This record gives sequence, structure tokens and C-alpha cells, in this order.
Amino acid sequence: MSIFMSEFLGSMLLILLGCGVCANVALKKSNGNGGGWIVITTGWALAVAIPALIFGNYSGAHFNPALTIALAAIGKISWATVPQYFAGEFLGAFVGAVLVFIMYHGQFEATEDPGTKLGVFATGPAVKSTLYNFLTEAIGTFVLVFGILGLGANQMAPGINTIVVGGLIFAIGLSLGGPTGYAINPCRDLSPRIAHAILPIPKKGDSNWGYAWIPVVAPIVGGLVAAFFYQAIV
Amino acid sequence: MSIFMSEFLGSMLLILLGCGVCANVALKKSNGNGGGWIVITTGWALAVAIPALIFGNYSGAHFNPALTIALAAIGKISWATVPQYFAGEFLGAFVGAVLVFIMYHGQFEATEDPGTKLGVFATGPAVKSTLYNFLTEAIGTFVLVFGILGLGANQMAPGINTIVVGGLIFAIGLSLGGPTGYAINPCRDLSPRIAHAILPIPKKGDSNWGYAWIPVVAPIVGGLVAAFFYQAIV
Amino acid sequence: MSIFMSEFLGSMLLILLGCGVCANVALKKSNGNGGGWIVITTGWALAVAIPALIFGNYSGAHFNPALTIALAAIGKISWATVPQYFAGEFLGAFVGAVLVFIMYHGQFEATEDPGTKLGVFATGPAVKSTLYNFLTEAIGTFVLVFGILGLGANQMAPGINTIVVGGLIFAIGLSLGGPTGYAINPCRDLSPRIAHAILPIPKKGDSNWGYAWIPVVAPIVGGLVAAFFYQAIV
Amino acid sequence: MSIFMSEFLGSMLLILLGCGVCANVALKKSNGNGGGWIVITTGWALAVAIPALIFGNYSGAHFNPALTIALAAIGKISWATVPQYFAGEFLGAFVGAVLVFIMYHGQFEATEDPGTKLGVFATGPAVKSTLYNFLTEAIGTFVLVFGILGLGANQMAPGINTIVVGGLIFAIGLSLGGPTGYAINPCRDLSPRIAHAILPIPKKGDSNWGYAWIPVVAPIVGGLVAAFFYQAIV
Repeated sequence: MSIFMSEFLGSMLLILLGCGVCANVALKKSNGNGGGWIVITTGWALAVAIPALIFGNYSGAHFNPALTIALAAIGKISWATVPQYFAGEFLGAFVGAVLVFIMYHGQFEATEDPGTKLGVFATGPAVKSTLYNFLTEAIGTFVLVFGILGLGANQMAPGINTIVVGGLIFAIGLSLGGPTGYAINPCRDLSPRIAHAILPIPKKGDSNWGYAWIPVVAPIVGGLVAAFFYQAIV
Repeated sequence: MSIFMSEFLGSMLLILLGCGVCANVALKKSNGNGGGWIVITTGWALAVAIPALIFGNYSGAHFNPALTIALAAIGKISWATVPQYFAGEFLGAFVGAVLVFIMYHGQFEATEDPGTKLGVFATGPAVKSTLYNFLTEAIGTFVLVFGILGLGANQMAPGINTIVVGGLIFAIGLSLGGPTGYAINPCRDLSPRIAHAILPIPKKGDSNWGYAWIPVVAPIVGGLVAAFFYQAIV
Repeated sequence: MSIFMSEFLGSMLLILLGCGVCANVALKKSNGNGGGWIVITTGWALAVAIPALIFGNYSGAHFNPALTIALAAIGKISWATVPQYFAGEFLGAFVGAVLVFIMYHGQFEATEDPGTKLGVFATGPAVKSTLYNFLTEAIGTFVLVFGILGLGANQMAPGINTIVVGGLIFAIGLSLGGPTGYAINPCRDLSPRIAHAILPIPKKGDSNWGYAWIPVVAPIVGGLVAAFFYQAIV
Repeated sequence: MSIFMSEFLGSMLLILLGCGVCANVALKKSNGNGGGWIVITTGWALAVAIPALIFGNYSGAHFNPALTIALAAIGKISWATVPQYFAGEFLGAFVGAVLVFIMYHGQFEATEDPGTKLGVFATGPAVKSTLYNFLTEAIGTFVLVFGILGLGANQMAPGINTIVVGGLIFAIGLSLGGPTGYAINPCRDLSPRIAHAILPIPKKGDSNWGYAWIPVVAPIVGGLVAAFFYQAIV
């Protein structure tokens, strides 16, 4: 399987499962409605771990342009492969978001509040502040990229490393996801936001484009700092 | 142990634990009453993983006719064994549902609402729509069968592969179980529904036979598409 | 370490952690108050898994007279060692219950309802019925003992087998714990009940001795049936 | 990486994730607000396990002066390295607490109650009692240190031992964290308490210094008793 196909399918599954759990908890007339933060964070942890276990051998299972850039910057992957990664990541995440809209069609119709519907697709700040929202996303992605590099250096039994990366996502969501909803990944936020803008979602509001740059730029900055810091200390 | 016996006992345990957790959360005068979606989905994840770890070496631990058909269609098992699988799956699931009725007898008596009682046995749509309910069950089973094949190709430490399949069920429940209750398995839905129709459940309503074909046909379709798609890309 | 010491310390830790989580969720002025069924069942799963991982190499980590009897009956352990097991199990569980009383002293004082205080130590039926309560505890212990034997036959990576037994306890609690609180273990119920009767718990009620035989006898019966059934089919 | 750097970064990550989950659940206008005890305890379990998997090979991943003292007392580490451990632990925990304040800045502003804000940083008793609070913290740390020694003697597949220590933290939180919030670690409590005293947190109250010695002294006592007890019986 090509890097593109692996990242495309993996990112599609990531967003189908990830935005899917948001839909399940947030939308009305859904079995998981009101399931709470433990459901959201467990769902996203598995949304990363399951596709990572399936596609890891084909592309390293990034599903995250900030991780791709960080790994290229410290020479862990070649810059020549980056366009393939990006294409798979952003396109796959978009298709995953479309699938969530298909599966939760009746629930989108049953839910009134436009903000709730946007929240299925894109992250947003609980308290608006360009400075602190940026810092939160950057620090969260620092933990993600530093953690992936650090965990990767620990030789565990086959399969355990990838499971533990799921645990890292779980930890970031539980502990650091409160202020901004932990995008920590440009394609996790931008592609579903575009899907929200394009799809015929009933009675939707705007897609909050004013915030859209933060979950793209801050993760890239946080990931780069983490990669260089990791290289410096190990 | 024969394939029949392995699938019979495994499917019995699957439904005892799976419909058991639904009874625990949904029925009145039960310790788990109101436990929420995290209890339901954790329960079903373990309801698959535990019997799969016990019976996997005897029959591959399908416990799911849609998986059996998909694996036969791509030549992973012989069509000649399929009748054995089916017999074990549907009969075992029926016996499991009977055991749930025995264990939760007092709780069935304490619960008024007939829909709640049916919900212990069979799935149903949160918002009725033949098209979207079908698509939801088909996509859910696509993720299940594609995931099982993909995870199976990743050589993990002994035991981890099966545990991770439990994680896959967990993910599907958390993220995709909202609209239809994730049957994703014909025997998980049909056998307990038959049990509901036959058993002397106090003040039960009808068994919603009009919906019963969707969690049988859609998983078979979704599973077949997943198996052929997986074969095509790997 | 002797079998006695291993079972004593393991059963002490089992009940400290197991009755501890009940105290945390049920008693007033405790951080975990109202934490729900997911907290209770996760707590008991770890209450078994952690001591089993510590003491498994010394005594096989029964911490459960019903399991000890079942294993002796099918020749997996010698009857001559059974008294050592029993002594460790019942005494350790008693000391564990005393430690819970010490740690949650302020919470026992802050809680009015005598039934809530008894519920920290001993199980009880949500709906009283000698027949169904007995069947529930017997079937629950059948699943426990059959599961332990079945999981033990699956050669997993070192450590995973024991972790998975924790998953089995988790599953039984989530799915089958609703009607009777899943004692599935004579020493888990009897020893803390004796502690409840003896300890100077403020404003406690009676120890519900009329029910006490069921979580002793039913697990023994269910465990024996499971062991012989397992031997017959494998 | 030096012992100091490993303990510094690990303790920083421990407190960033650990106090982070407290902020997420306790503070207003946070996505995890009201997430409950399962979110808190899962967060702290991963807050230990993730850095332990990253830094274990460099320093043994103590992140806890009570564990450091206990291991030195029974000769598992040299007393000469203890100052390095202490410096890393207390400084790292302080920086982690500062990062939590930065990430949850808007949430600290949105929350009125000073006690809630202190609770993000430091533990406190649900029912005040020097005797019982001390005993609770000492017994909790006994379980921690005894558990770490006991689990370490069980040779599991690579990576599993450390994951299981996360399970031990999870168990202690779920079962024994009710009365005092399970500091079980001097630097987990003292360093964030100092951060609380120093940081410009809006409308904060006092830092409850009267209680501060208990989560420092009791864990050291409990850990020492556990280490000597473990040595005596194994």
C-alpha cells in the first residue's frame, strides 16, 4: 500500500471514529448523547490507536501534518514524501467527516443548536484568547510529538508501542483538552471544518473561520519545537 | 473442541455479557442502572474480547455470521464450514439471551416500559430511516471486518491481537453506535429478538420485526464490501 | 513466600481495593462519591488484577475459595493445600475490610444510611429472591471459573494472561453485577460481613445474615460446575 | 540523559497531565467540567504511565521522593543519587504546575471558588483529621511502593510492567483516593502548592499550609514501611 493510500485510509478512519464520537455525545436522539468527557476521550484515543495498528507498517501512521513536518524536520522521514503524507491526511480526514454526516444524518436533523453541529466537526475555544488558545494547542502538540518520539525509543513487545500512543492521546484529551478541545493536528480540524462548510447540514451556522488558523499553525509550531528539543536532549 | 461448540459457547458468552450489560444499565432495580454509554460500550468490548481469547484457537472466534460470510467470500475459511459456524452463532446467541432473562428476572419484573425491555435484546434506530439505518449498520460492519483483517496482518505479541479487536469493538460502539445501537452482527440481533418473542417476559411489547432485517442484511453487505476492498488494496 | 502468606496478602489487597472503591463511591464526603458503576467495576477489576500480578507466582493468585475448590476438584491443585488457601483468603479479606474502615473512618461517620454502610462490606440483592439470587451468583461464578480455565489455556505474552483475568472480572461486573453485586467469591463477601458485624462502625444496622449463605454457597456450586464442564469439553 | 533531566522532565509531565486533569474537571468553562472521578483517576494513571514509559530507561521513573527514599533505604539505588532525584522531582513538578496555569488561564479566570482553584494544585482532606488523613496517605503509599516492588519482580513482556504500574495508580485513585485525594507523593503535592502560592492566580485563597506536611511526611513513612516489609517477606 502506498504512503498516500495508508495515510488517506488511516486519516479517514481517524475522523470517522473521532468526529463520530463527538456526534454521538453531542447530537440529540443519539444513544451516546450526554455520555460525557470519558466517552469523548476514549473515543479519540481509539480513533488514533486502531488505524495506527492497521496502517502503521505502511506509512508510520502519522494521520497528522504537524507530526509529518516535525519528523521531516529532524530527518526521520524524507521531505520528498511529505506531499504524499499531506494529500492523504487532508483528503482522508475530509472523507471521514462526510461519512460522519451520513451516519448521523437523522441526529443532525434532530439537533437545533448550530454551535453543537459545528462542534462535531471542528474544535473551538471554551474561552476565547488568541494567546492562550495558541499556547494550549502548541503545548498539547509538544506533548504529543515529544511523547511519540520518547515512546518510540522504548523497545516494547510488538504492538504495545502503538497501543501506548493511544494512551498518550487519551492522556492529552483527559488532561489538556479542556480549553480548546485538543485539535493538536491540522487535518483533524481543517478538513472537517471544510466539510462542515460544504455539506448540506440542516440549519447549520458559520464554520468559525476566524479561529481556524490556530489549530493549524499552533500544532505545527508545537510539534517542531518538540522534535528539536527531543533531539537536543537525547 | 469442534467449530460448532466453540462458536456456540463463544456466542452464548458474547450475548450473555453483551445483552447483560444492556440489562444492567437499562432495567430498574439493577446496580448498573443509569451507568451510561461508557458502561454499555465497555461491556460489549469485553463481551467480544473475553470469549475471543478463550475460543479463538478453536474456531477463530467469529461469533458473527457477517464475519463468517466475509471470510468465506475471500477464501480465508472454507464454505463447507459455514453451516457449522452459523448453527453455533445463532443457537449460542439465543441461549445467551435466555440466560440474561434468568439472571435479570427480578429487574424485568420491576421495569414498566416495554421498549426498554426489548432494548435489552435487540437493537433499534434512534431516528427511523431505512436508508440511513441501513447505511449506518453497513458502514459500522465495514469498519469491523476491515479492521479485523487489517489488525490480523499486524504481527503483535501473543494475545495482543485479540485484545485489540476488543478495542475495535469499543471504538465502533463509542463512535458509531449512536444512531442504531451497533448490531453489526446478524446473530447478535436476530437470536435475542427471537428470544424476546418466545420468552415469558412480563408485560413485554412486540419485537419490532419490521426493523429486524436491517441488522441482518446490512452487516452482511458491509462485511462483504470490506473483505473485497481489503483484498483489493493490500 | 508461602501459599498462606501469598493468599493472605493478595486477599487483603483485593478487599482493601475492592471494598475501598465501594466506600469511595457510596459514602458521603468522599471524592469519588456518586462516581457510578464504571468506577465500581473498574475498581474491582484492578483489585483482582494488581494483586494477581504481584502474588501469582507464589500461589496462583486465587483470592477466592470457590476457585480454590474448583481447581482442587479437577486436580489442578492438591487438596492438601486447600486449608492454607482458605486460611489466607478468609483472614486476608477480613484484614482488608478493617483497613477500609480505617481509611474511610471520616466518611463512615458522615454517612447516615446503615444500608449504604453495609454495602461497602457485603453484597446484597437488588430484588430479593432466593432462587434468582442463587442462580445469578452461580452463573456469574461459572463465567469466572470457566473463563479463568479457558484464558489460562491460551498462551499469551508474559503478564497478559493475568491482565486479561482482570478484564474478565471487569466484564462480569459490568454485565452480570446488576442483580446481586457480583460477590462470585465466598471470602469477598463473608469476611467483610464479619468485619462489619465486629467493627465499631457508627450507627450501623444489622449485617443481613439471612442473605449471607448465598454468596458463599452459590459461587462454590457455580465454580464446581464450570470446572467439570470445562474438563468435559476440552 | 542524566537522572536529573529524566526526573525533571518526567515529573513536569506528571504534574502537567495530573494537575491538568484536575483543572479540566474542576474549573468552569472547560470541556471536561463535571467529568467525574473516572476522568480524574484515568488522567492520573496515564500521567504516571506515559512519562514512566518515556523516561524509565534513564532514571527508573520515580517522579516521587517517597519512592526514591524507599528504594535508597533498601539499597535499590545509591543514596548518592538521591539529591539528583529530589532536585528533578520537585523542580519538574513545579514547572508542570506553572504550565497547567498557562494552559487553563481562561478557566482560572472563569472560576469563582478559591477552594476549587487550590484543588487543581494541591490535595486536601474531605474530612479533616490529622490521624486518619495521615494513615490514609501512609497506607496509600504503602500500596504504591509495595506494589511497584512486587510488580517489578514479575517478569512481563517488555513495556507491560510499566503499563501495569499505571494500573496500580489507577487502582489507588479509584479505591483509596476518596478521603484525601491520594497525593501519595511529596512532590506531587508540595511543588504545585508552592506554585499556587507564587502564581498570580486571580482571586485565589490561601494555600492551606497547615495540611501541607501530611502529604509530604505520610508518603515517606508509608513508603519506607512498605519497602522494609517487602524485603522481609520476599
